[in-house]
Amino acid sequence: MDIAAQITARAARIEEKIRPFMPRQQGLQQTVLDAMDYSVFAGGKRLRPMLMEAAYELFGGEGEEIYPFMAAMEMIHTYSLVHDDLPAMDNDEYRRGKKTTHAVYGEAMAILAGDALLNYAYETVANELCRHPENEKLPKAFAVLASKAGIYGMIGGQVVDVESEKKAQTVDREKLDFIYRLKTSALIEASLKIGAILAGATEEEASLLEEAGTKLGLAFQIRDDILDVTGTLEILGKPIGSDGRNEKSTYVTFEGIEQAKKDVERLSAEAVSILEQCGGNHAFLKELFLFLINREK
Amino acid sequence: MDIAAQITARAARIEEKIRPFMPRQQGLQQTVLDAMDYSVFAGGKRLRPMLMEAAYELFGGEGEEIYPFMAAMEMIHTYSLVHDDLPAMDNDEYRRGKKTTHAVYGEAMAILAGDALLNYAYETVANELCRHPENEKLPKAFAVLASKAGIYGMIGGQVVDVESEKKAQTVDREKLDFIYRLKTSALIEASLKIGAILAGATEEEASLLEEAGTKLGLAFQIRDDILDVTGTLEILGKPIGSDGRNEKSTYVTFEGIEQAKKDVERLSAEAVSILEQCGGNHAFLKELFLFLINREK
Repeated sequence: MDIAAQITARAARIEEKIRPFMPRQQGLQQTVLDAMDYSVFAGGKRLRPMLMEAAYELFGGEGEEIYPFMAAMEMIHTYSLVHDDLPAMDNDEYRRGKKTTHAVYGEAMAILAGDALLNYAYETVANELCRHPENEKLPKAFAVLASKAGIYGMIGGQVVDVESEKKAQTVDREKLDFIYRLKTSALIEASLKIGAILAGATEEEASLLEEAGTKLGLAFQIRDDILDVTGTLEILGKPIGSDGRNEKSTYVTFEGIEQAKKDVERLSAEAVSILEQCGGNHAFLKELFLFLINREK
Repeated sequence: MDIAAQITARAARIEEKIRPFMPRQQGLQQTVLDAMDYSVFAGGKRLRPMLMEAAYELFGGEGEEIYPFMAAMEMIHTYSLVHDDLPAMDNDEYRRGKKTTHAVYGEAMAILAGDALLNYAYETVANELCRHPENEKLPKAFAVLASKAGIYGMIGGQVVDVESEKKAQTVDREKLDFIYRLKTSALIEASLKIGAILAGATEEEASLLEEAGTKLGLAFQIRDDILDVTGTLEILGKPIGSDGRNEKSTYVTFEGIEQAKKDVERLSAEAVSILEQCGGNHAFLKELFLFLINREK
């Protein structure tokens, strides 16, 4: 099975692992439960839980405690998309070819569904901690999740990104790096680090894998910027540079497309080299890294 | 010192206990840190952390582990107000005589500041759990907080409330009770229960205090409905019933003002009676209950 097929098969399996952690009880608050379910199962690639599980396996993890964290991670990723798409934010009507949550359920319910997913992620973690109060790895994994999702992680990156767009501030290189590291890399770092922690990796190993996540996230984001330009080239038949002065600044704007490609290569090699230092069976995780970084769409 | 003065003094002290748990590091995400700070310190009465601390003291609690939970509770209460006030929700420009968060920082930043406060509440709890992984009361308190703040707690009540308003659905008595119990009582129940749990109360005692919270929350909300009517009476010089058919249905609409007053009395007596069953020094908590239920504004 090639890596694309492996990833598709894994994603389907992960969805079935996540599903039991979603709230299912029916009640008067049915609409928000529907909106949560719609948002989570609207076709994500499950990359973050996939990275978490692969990191767990890399360090020999064999238990069940990874599943609530995989589910919580996907809930947090999903809430961030639901709130990002809101009219007051990016105002997107479609995502992955489907109507966004507010387009289907209205703005108020989308705000509440996002809040509910974020809170339910921690409710899921809390239940696991209560079931296994003796497992001292769980509070550590919880702290990594909360920290990487918050103001010094994903939300922090989102704030600077929103401000840059709304105020039409010039994004300087420092801000761009900050946004990429927090908005894109933080949850990827968290996924890899939580997998390592729960499998019983040492602190040093967990930090190494976190660093691989930083590089993977950055390479992934730069690759995105490159695909935006080459995609635009194909569609418009002219280079973006010719009329791109009002476009959002990206890595490509600062470094040029050739340098951006080189940097993706370099970051990719560094991330893989870290994986190799970790020992264990890193075959799948390495292929997953390379697939994400070298994707064509 | 009378109870009103005691409460004011306690609130000031609680604010100083909460402050060190707020994020203080400066960075590119400064705006959201400012918005979080503005929202939390815009003049709340700190009732939920006050109830939590008083419940902790009732059961002889003397440690420091209550403070992060008091801070987390206030962050969660605050985020719920910030999101409630948004244009897509209640669209309020002022709260407690001050501009609401979105009125000052814009809608996008208010959404993010709310998300950030909710997440940071759990980050605060996670840090406490990592500091004391041996303390098995902490995961229990965490689970109560997450559950009462979520879809089977506060958010669930908020969802049904928003739907009732937006769709102009008739609120039947079942829905009204559901909204009051979840939207108003849930965090009060959580505050009392967490205080009890952290002080080492038995499960039975913690559940008793939770039940007192249900009654206190309900009485508090009905008292609010009564004050709405008597306030309107004073302003308009005519009873609300005469032109109140398009008004939002409240407990007073269903039961009439005299019955509502009797029910506040009954609920209040029941809540106090539960307190007395718990033993310990319940003097302050009892006075606080009665003050909240019998307030004139």
